[in-house]
Amino acid sequence: MDQKKLNDWLDSRKKRKSLMTADHLVPKILEGNIEALSTAITLLESTLSEDKSESDQMIQQLLPHSGKSVRIGITGVPGVGKSSFIEEFGLMLTEIGHKVAVLAIDPSSGESGGSILGDKTRMKELSKHPKVFIRPTAAGTTLGGVARATRESIFLCEVAGFDVIIIETVGVGQSETMVHSMVDFFLLLMLSGAGDELQGIKRGIMEMADALVITKADGENEKKAEMASREYANAMHLFPPKKSEWVPLSFTCSSQEKKNIDKVWATIESFENQTKINGWFKEHRHIQDKYWLRETLKEMILDEFFENTELVEQLRLKEEQVFNDEISSFQAAEFLFKAFNSKSRGTN
Amino acid sequence: MDQKKLNDWLDSRKKRKSLMTADHLVPKILEGNIEALSTAITLLESTLSEDKSESDQMIQQLLPHSGKSVRIGITGVPGVGKSSFIEEFGLMLTEIGHKVAVLAIDPSSGESGGSILGDKTRMKELSKHPKVFIRPTAAGTTLGGVARATRESIFLCEVAGFDVIIIETVGVGQSETMVHSMVDFFLLLMLSGAGDELQGIKRGIMEMADALVITKADGENEKKAEMASREYANAMHLFPPKKSEWVPLSFTCSSQEKKNIDKVWATIESFENQTKINGWFKEHRHIQDKYWLRETLKEMILDEFFENTELVEQLRLKEEQVFNDEISSFQAAEFLFKAFNSKSRGTN
Repeated sequence: MDQKKLNDWLDSRKKRKSLMTADHLVPKILEGNIEALSTAITLLESTLSEDKSESDQMIQQLLPHSGKSVRIGITGVPGVGKSSFIEEFGLMLTEIGHKVAVLAIDPSSGESGGSILGDKTRMKELSKHPKVFIRPTAAGTTLGGVARATRESIFLCEVAGFDVIIIETVGVGQSETMVHSMVDFFLLLMLSGAGDELQGIKRGIMEMADALVITKADGENEKKAEMASREYANAMHLFPPKKSEWVPLSFTCSSQEKKNIDKVWATIESFENQTKINGWFKEHRHIQDKYWLRETLKEMILDEFFENTELVEQLRLKEEQVFNDEISSFQAAEFLFKAFNSKSRGTN
Repeated sequence: MDQKKLNDWLDSRKKRKSLMTADHLVPKILEGNIEALSTAITLLESTLSEDKSESDQMIQQLLPHSGKSVRIGITGVPGVGKSSFIEEFGLMLTEIGHKVAVLAIDPSSGESGGSILGDKTRMKELSKHPKVFIRPTAAGTTLGGVARATRESIFLCEVAGFDVIIIETVGVGQSETMVHSMVDFFLLLMLSGAGDELQGIKRGIMEMADALVITKADGENEKKAEMASREYANAMHLFPPKKSEWVPLSFTCSSQEKKNIDKVWATIESFENQTKINGWFKEHRHIQDKYWLRETLKEMILDEFFENTELVEQLRLKEEQVFNDEISSFQAAEFLFKAFNSKSRGTN
């Protein structure tokens, strides 16, 4: 690297650093500046320790300003038409005066390298709208890391004045449970399939849903979608009642024909009203906060072991001994626990 | 308490202590003494620290003697006829020369105080048989505690010469996943219901099953049971292939008419043969050992926090601050993590 290039690099690094500070970002976020919001999320997704401390300061400074919003989880298998739905749903919301943030979580993106949700081109109109903020998951992070980043991103979006936060995820794996644990309302999008309507998605995910919407109810598909919707409505009647006292709805919609998109919002508003009256809305958020406080704490404590290369090497050795029936798995655990404790004592 | 009573109490305590020692129990367990086996399991279920160290010594002394067995998980909703099935199944196994241990796990017993599985009278013949050992869960323990006690009980039963270990659980909640993670073969008992055959039990539990047996296939119920069995067989064909390369079977049985009870055992033997040839049997146990080693270790590490009254009190205070929006749940977690670390440093 010659001197000029080095200087350029140092300059750009300095510039980046001056932009990625709490002092620079906080006032801009409070103004609702989308670029600053985006930089702030990059900052809190960073694993560099200097970024981490800056990000903590930023959150601390913003805490008194916490905003108000309704948090909506949207899930459904690939091909159900999530992008088209969110495009129409988001545009409709902006038309009636809302500011919309879409945070997309794709648990597979970490492994595959490419996110199937990250492509902004899939929501063409929405992503260009000045009152809309769209952000995919940071690639290459763990589910725990994604959870933390998403939770803090929700907070930042709210502080920046976004009053509808959509958390989008693919209807497979563990990410729905995670999303369910950080939203107020959980929307499940489904296709009308051929037969066996109930087998397409795990029952557990259906039980989490506050509304189930059959997409692509247009043209020849309309009748089939209506039938599927009735079948689901019957199935959902058998589920145990929800703590929110909310009775989940099932109906059809068409993004192409812009049909019933407003009904989804009316449903969410009705849910919000009902649960604010019966106290669930606030209670639910408290339960979620408590859950995330404990989850984060557990993760931090366990990382002390599982991010220590020496202890992990000892774990590997003990695993071998268990395989060879030299010790039981419980004795191995006890040995490693003692090693962990004396390690903590030594390094602190 | 007068002096005589006190002396009696001290005597009985001394006697109990002399019986509940590794030195006393180990040789008796190796002889297959059922009373000693029972005392040994009581010892390892105990939470007293003196019992804990004695129990650890006992396990250590027994390790070189580890026995051979096939471990069978049996689950099904209440009313499916688990007791009647296990009674007939167990008696059949003793007739062909096996020694059978039945460990019953009832996750609800801890809360309700009474175990629906604990009652020995529900397997009248079997519980009196000299080659059979039946043991319910210790009441009032956590799922983690039950897991550990059950894993160690399996080991003790094997060392005592029991070559068929049945782990029985109720087909509801999380206990199946736990049982699945400690057995070689997982058997799901089901009833032929009216319609909607697939809705009775969670799909996830059906996917874990190596065989699905429709009970009570006798009298008027026989045809319905046959039909249900075929429906399940079709449904199971759609499941992803198992790592064991075993193709799950579905068939009917009747405990009352002692029909097909032997077919269940033939199926398990066939599974054992096949998976011992393709290597899965051993590989699967290694995967389970590794899993339990890590789970136990995590539990021990987290207990350091969650069994420390001072830290738990601090957690409670931080939860309140989060509720009042004074700090974020992540900041609270970081504070508590630091408190945990300085606590460890202080007390060690």
